[in-house]
Amino acid sequence: MNKRVLRKTDGRALILYGRQPIPADLPAPSPSAAPFAPNGHLRWHPLRGEWVAYATHRQNRTFLPPAAYNPLAPTTDPAVPTELPQGTYDVAVFENLFPTFTSGAHDPPSLTVATRESKGTCEVVVFTQQPDASLGALPLWHLEMIIEVWGDRYRELGARDDVAYVYAFENRGVEVGVTLQHPHGQIYAYPFVPPIPARALAQERAFFGATGGTLLERLVAEELATGRRVLYEGPDVAAFVPVCARYPYEVWIATKRRTASLADLTAAARADFARALKSVLLKYDGLWSRPFPYIMAIYQAPTDGGQYPEAHLHVEFYPAYRMPDRLKYLAGSEIGAGVFTADTDPDDKAAELKAVQVAL
Amino acid sequence: MNKRVLRKTDGRALILYGRQPIPADLPAPSPSAAPFAPNGHLRWHPLRGEWVAYATHRQNRTFLPPAAYNPLAPTTDPAVPTELPQGTYDVAVFENLFPTFTSGAHDPPSLTVATRESKGTCEVVVFTQQPDASLGALPLWHLEMIIEVWGDRYRELGARDDVAYVYAFENRGVEVGVTLQHPHGQIYAYPFVPPIPARALAQERAFFGATGGTLLERLVAEELATGRRVLYEGPDVAAFVPVCARYPYEVWIATKRRTASLADLTAAARADFARALKSVLLKYDGLWSRPFPYIMAIYQAPTDGGQYPEAHLHVEFYPAYRMPDRLKYLAGSEIGAGVFTADTDPDDKAAELKAVQVAL
Repeated sequence: MNKRVLRKTDGRALILYGRQPIPADLPAPSPSAAPFAPNGHLRWHPLRGEWVAYATHRQNRTFLPPAAYNPLAPTTDPAVPTELPQGTYDVAVFENLFPTFTSGAHDPPSLTVATRESKGTCEVVVFTQQPDASLGALPLWHLEMIIEVWGDRYRELGARDDVAYVYAFENRGVEVGVTLQHPHGQIYAYPFVPPIPARALAQERAFFGATGGTLLERLVAEELATGRRVLYEGPDVAAFVPVCARYPYEVWIATKRRTASLADLTAAARADFARALKSVLLKYDGLWSRPFPYIMAIYQAPTDGGQYPEAHLHVEFYPAYRMPDRLKYLAGSEIGAGVFTADTDPDDKAAELKAVQVAL
Repeated sequence: MNKRVLRKTDGRALILYGRQPIPADLPAPSPSAAPFAPNGHLRWHPLRGEWVAYATHRQNRTFLPPAAYNPLAPTTDPAVPTELPQGTYDVAVFENLFPTFTSGAHDPPSLTVATRESKGTCEVVVFTQQPDASLGALPLWHLEMIIEVWGDRYRELGARDDVAYVYAFENRGVEVGVTLQHPHGQIYAYPFVPPIPARALAQERAFFGATGGTLLERLVAEELATGRRVLYEGPDVAAFVPVCARYPYEVWIATKRRTASLADLTAAARADFARALKSVLLKYDGLWSRPFPYIMAIYQAPTDGGQYPEAHLHVEFYPAYRMPDRLKYLAGSEIGAGVFTADTDPDDKAAELKAVQVAL
């Protein structure tokens, strides 16, 4: 994988990745003429015991622009710059123009609750130059490269002093609020370990302490032994509807043996991970013969300097629909109490997904 | 307040409340001819360390029925029974026909994760007989009665051995998945203290242990001292946009002094609470001159037999919109990491709500 780091005209980072060497003379355009100087802050929520990120500069961010303008496509008219140049590259990463976290955040306000700077970074990962592709439609070599890019970002962002957790995700579909249709994901590099991974790590730590193995190793082994919810099994990686699925069609992808992050995958395991990922995505899109909206969350070990032998790389997909015409709403019980009410049997949803034939 | 307990033809409880005595001879209809025998179960989610409720009988529940049929209106044609009789009453409560939790849940399946019965109860609270009213449009005496009904349900359900937490809420608007437009809320009586209140109670307990006062007393006092986000202040109750708001237009209502539950309010405090509630609801609907969708969550002390001197009654509103035409989506950061990204300044949102004049 070739990589080239550029600096955009407004000061933001742009990193290009490709099979071919990246030309040295590529421009690094920006749709924004103003210098990049967002300044968010965090406020402590005393009742929830968590940080809330304030980024009021995001309120007017890009929203379903006309099809004619795609900020994630290569620039064709220099008078109307996008985020990316024309040129030979396969995957592009740049700092989000409307970030919640930035390395330069400073001087948080003084309030009745504790505050701190919104340090960290928000990056956009453009999966391909093709505006009408999708993650699952990309060939396996391309998915392997995206996994390698995620690993590169994990290593590079995680090495920073102000980054405690590197979280890659994809929001897919207008149903989950996506404003740009060009295939892309995001990376949030948080200055703290976020509440949901922190909670999971506490569970994993207790299990690891009691057994010496990781909780995910146990869960994957149990799913493979049960068998009926398994969507993919390769030498190193498995994909399945978990027995404790909260969402209809929820799927997890995990390595069979403990791996801390995507950066730690061998080339063979990365290829296996790509096959698992493509299998799940093609099953999703094949289920109702249309693009299947979801949130994809990638959990890796924290990068705050601590030791996390219990942390085990895995991906969770949270689909938006429970039936072709019925969204799964998170309402009073889920949002207010934190109790998920599952209307569907994971076995049934797994059977539906298993029945979708896919060709990698 | 008068109260009468009836038993529906399918076995479910129906409780009617009113200013006038409730006639003794009212029927207790049901849209369902089948005996009421749902049987959900709980599965332990090992990574999240929480119970997930499975109720697969809910998958085909009532969904946006034609306007001609309203199951929450009094029955007018005995051949087409609704959930309620005609007669003199103001508020009605009945067991949800599609519940997640029921007292009769039994024999959970044996799985690779721990399981248990979905004990507890799900109730529907019909706020009024008027199908086109709304909670905020009801007169103050009616709101006071609804608060008294919530208190009655808290006491009655909370006294049961299988109920550890009584949670009243309202989902309002199709934007949060509401399928029936008739004004109503719900009550979930959980067999455990749910994760979000449990987390808040841990924070409250630590504060109480350190100071001897409740965290909400402190937060309310700070908001009243700051002043600029306060939407209502009465002798006993305050409503405000909290300094740590996660949602745009998020509002909390709380008693100034610690109160464990709505059942513990004095008549005067209940009247004050009703004024606070009506003020907030009228401001919401007045903001854009249209019904304002939200989730309303009511937090009270657990009923699991423990002592909770730190638990402090309060209401939180989570609005669906961040601008008139833009929903606030919970996506990758909120759903996957648990980190809320607030695009708006609570001061600005409070100023907008303060500017809406209301007449109680």
